[in-house]
Amino acid sequence: MAGRTVRAEQVSATRELILTAAERLFAERGVYAVSNRQVSEAAGQGNNAAVGYHFGTKTDLVRAIIRKHAARIEEIRARLLAAVGDSTDVRDWVDCLVRPVPEHLAALGSPTWYARFCAQVMTDPALRRLMAEESLSSPSLRQIVEGVRRCLPDMPDEVRVERGDMVRHLIVHVAAERERALAENTPTPRTSWRGAATGLVDAVVGMWLAPVTRGREIT
Amino acid sequence: MAGRTVRAEQVSATRELILTAAERLFAERGVYAVSNRQVSEAAGQGNNAAVGYHFGTKTDLVRAIIRKHAARIEEIRARLLAAVGDSTDVRDWVDCLVRPVPEHLAALGSPTWYARFCAQVMTDPALRRLMAEESLSSPSLRQIVEGVRRCLPDMPDEVRVERGDMVRHLIVHVAAERERALAENTPTPRTSWRGAATGLVDAVVGMWLAPVTRGREIT
Repeated sequence: MAGRTVRAEQVSATRELILTAAERLFAERGVYAVSNRQVSEAAGQGNNAAVGYHFGTKTDLVRAIIRKHAARIEEIRARLLAAVGDSTDVRDWVDCLVRPVPEHLAALGSPTWYARFCAQVMTDPALRRLMAEESLSSPSLRQIVEGVRRCLPDMPDEVRVERGDMVRHLIVHVAAERERALAENTPTPRTSWRGAATGLVDAVVGMWLAPVTRGREIT
Repeated sequence: MAGRTVRAEQVSATRELILTAAERLFAERGVYAVSNRQVSEAAGQGNNAAVGYHFGTKTDLVRAIIRKHAARIEEIRARLLAAVGDSTDVRDWVDCLVRPVPEHLAALGSPTWYARFCAQVMTDPALRRLMAEESLSSPSLRQIVEGVRRCLPDMPDEVRVERGDMVRHLIVHVAAERERALAENTPTPRTSWRGAATGLVDAVVGMWLAPVTRGREIT
């Protein structure tokens, strides 16, 4: 039994090394550009087939990285959601939508790679579906999206979808750009993830509440 | 002299084939993931060194693709800028900022790859600087950014920079997502690039004019 436990711990440590190496390489170079062999090497695995053995395909590996972070992001989201109650102020719901990722990144400490990893995954034609699947499986996220919807002024469904897509782009790419600036030590607005999240909440609330042009030539 | 003209036309045609093949491959797979050799092959060049011969490095090739489109985008921008005069309505300036790329994509006809190409370049740590350099060299873009600034309510410089970055993310990624949806025949809001641009202008104006949270814990 003791031998089995040691073995299980070794496997767990190897998987963690692979996940960390892969997240970093994918973040810096793009998912498509990095081979499983390169990930195995960067994780210090003598066996170049280590990724395949522990995770399967590259898609499985990307999914494992997403899930590693998803549990903690979901915890933050559930906590914010519990605090918002039945608010009818759209800002409270936007807080729940926007703050979990920056708060998670702040908790990881510097440097992080997850924000750039997400930007790479979201820019990949095939892998972006993985991220959508994981998001759809979050019950708290569904409640938050519904909460935002209830607080919005009347607008065509098409515009609501369009603005929801824009919010998603901003959450992903603002965080990735800030993470890159921190990694490269170049200037970036705000001194904390918390401040950056506030800036994003302000902007997203303004965007959601913006008047909608109607009439000819706008479809 | 006739021989020289024919040769020049052949060179020009070859360069065009390479630019088109590269734009498409980079858009679909990412810039880092595609080799110059693959571009040469996709362009139907027997000589695998054709990219190197005609363009130099991959960075030079990416720059050539950007410049190919930049001239026409600049024409549209200059036309919109001439119409806006000395307006003090931020919406007029946002129109100038947001509409050139979608209008250019509409003029290219379907399918296009340039929006996805731009998203890939902007997500690449090294190549994104190319795009910034090209933008900075556009005198009309500088005038437009200045025009937006003059119409904005008072806000900290940091917030103005932050929102400017968000607008850039939206222009790039909304267009790329719409182009991908058109290519894959999946649903996307709005039936035209013009309509999509109107949706983006509405959202961006709302974002620029959004109240700014001030006080503790917001830096």
